[in-house]
Amino acid sequence: MSSLQINEVAPRDGLQIETEFVPTADKIGLIDALSATGLARIEATSFVSPKAIPQLRDAAEVVTGIQRRPGVGITVLVPNVKGAERALACSVDEINLVMSASDSHGVANLRMTPQQSLEQFAAIIDTVRAHPQGRDVFINASLSTSFGCPFEGEVPEAQVLDLVEQQLTLGVQGVSLCDTTGMANPAQVARLCEAVLERFPEVPFTLHFHNTRGMGLANAMAAWQAGIVRFDASLGGLGGCPYAPGATGNVCTEDLVHMFEEMGVSTGVDLDALLDVSARLPPLIGHETPGQVVKAGKADRRYPMPTR
Amino acid sequence: MSSLQINEVAPRDGLQIETEFVPTADKIGLIDALSATGLARIEATSFVSPKAIPQLRDAAEVVTGIQRRPGVGITVLVPNVKGAERALACSVDEINLVMSASDSHGVANLRMTPQQSLEQFAAIIDTVRAHPQGRDVFINASLSTSFGCPFEGEVPEAQVLDLVEQQLTLGVQGVSLCDTTGMANPAQVARLCEAVLERFPEVPFTLHFHNTRGMGLANAMAAWQAGIVRFDASLGGLGGCPYAPGATGNVCTEDLVHMFEEMGVSTGVDLDALLDVSARLPPLIGHETPGQVVKAGKADRRYPMPTR
Repeated sequence: MSSLQINEVAPRDGLQIETEFVPTADKIGLIDALSATGLARIEATSFVSPKAIPQLRDAAEVVTGIQRRPGVGITVLVPNVKGAERALACSVDEINLVMSASDSHGVANLRMTPQQSLEQFAAIIDTVRAHPQGRDVFINASLSTSFGCPFEGEVPEAQVLDLVEQQLTLGVQGVSLCDTTGMANPAQVARLCEAVLERFPEVPFTLHFHNTRGMGLANAMAAWQAGIVRFDASLGGLGGCPYAPGATGNVCTEDLVHMFEEMGVSTGVDLDALLDVSARLPPLIGHETPGQVVKAGKADRRYPMPTR
Repeated sequence: MSSLQINEVAPRDGLQIETEFVPTADKIGLIDALSATGLARIEATSFVSPKAIPQLRDAAEVVTGIQRRPGVGITVLVPNVKGAERALACSVDEINLVMSASDSHGVANLRMTPQQSLEQFAAIIDTVRAHPQGRDVFINASLSTSFGCPFEGEVPEAQVLDLVEQQLTLGVQGVSLCDTTGMANPAQVARLCEAVLERFPEVPFTLHFHNTRGMGLANAMAAWQAGIVRFDASLGGLGGCPYAPGATGNVCTEDLVHMFEEMGVSTGVDLDALLDVSARLPPLIGHETPGQVVKAGKADRRYPMPTR
């Protein structure tokens, strides 16, 4: 039986764009509940400047406050050397570096071109590997706009492959290909996944989709058919992109788990437990979520016959 | 280049479950606008009893009021002999018969078991073929709960194949396999589509999906990969099922067209024109629709760089 690894990104990618600050204790409670569902990894927070993203200003308290469970990797977003030092002090399992595949998105989102990001990656990786807590930390890199840029449009496949190659040369161990604003389609996903798996067969690739245009699960299926077994997903479908107004968020974890489990592909996740955690989101964030299964119930839900 | 045929079902499957009656002139305006977008077929209404579905009590006025365009087939749902006679008097191109693949859904939705529906099909088909306007009318049959029943659960593939065989023996010319309450998953879709296409290679099969659990487009992709080229879809994602509360509606036409066109699969539909028609729905029905592309824009939408 095939099996997948799910990286839950709602605590970082979801909560960072919520208007209201979610209290630290609630974040910890959310992550602890997620840890108990069998998810392979959880992106717990971002060690970004508290001024840049005040919603995640409690990064260190969150990571040191959560329960650590064997088998559940805790990963954190790290934007720079200072962030790496703060993250390592909290004994994270993995750090996730972020850069864009396109110049304009890099400058808009990170104030760095891809080449400037790669220089920063080198400095961060040096810091991590020289740090007493950093030798065994897994270093992942997320490549935003891998399937297209909301400012400049098409991002050539060769450009993505070249940036992945440069990341790996610097010591990056895993790469997440991100459809940051939901521009990918299944045919494109199949092509790019086949290309990276052929050229870098030893590298664990993670696919990160948004449901902006309704194609999130179709893209995940296309990636899985191409051989991808690691996915980012966000509880309730939280997340989104400040440059894509009107858009829904990341691909929804429970909807992704539900689809693959229905297909007979094991995710290792207790879906009922995950749905219970998802149902706790609306009071936490103050609004409904775009997740579908949490509202409609699983496909095996049975209804009573109507009475006339 | 591959190409698809889209059967737009919003005027029937969508409007029949809206709380408010949409005025006849608005229905005619909607169908005329849809006709101009290049859709292959439009299911315009249902010749059901006005008491059973008052929202569609104007079936004859709608069908006789719309503009008929060459290349756009007008199909209508016909539940019984009387409905067939009313439909034929309006010179429809196609009639769509409906039955369930499962006993309990048939009884709940139509007050007929599948066997009783087949007997009724025989009577309707006799009437159509004996009618002066009926000799060239295409007879399609929709098979509800082909992928599972919300009351009794699994519907065996052999049962679906057997019912299709019986429909064809009676003179049905095309069959729509319907995932009435959104229970299908892509692996199941691939299996059933491959099975029907292998056993009945000459029959035009249409796949009808709901997005109840977010899998609508993934299921459509799986069906297309298996060789299916005809899809039901509903503008804005209107529709749903009275037995699946909390569920979203049918797979959304513009989202389906957008996905396939992005993949390089021609649908014959002018997507910009279709999005314009979809944007007219909320004032017509008094609420937002679940469609995504009409809110987020197409994948080729470009944004201005943010200013700091």
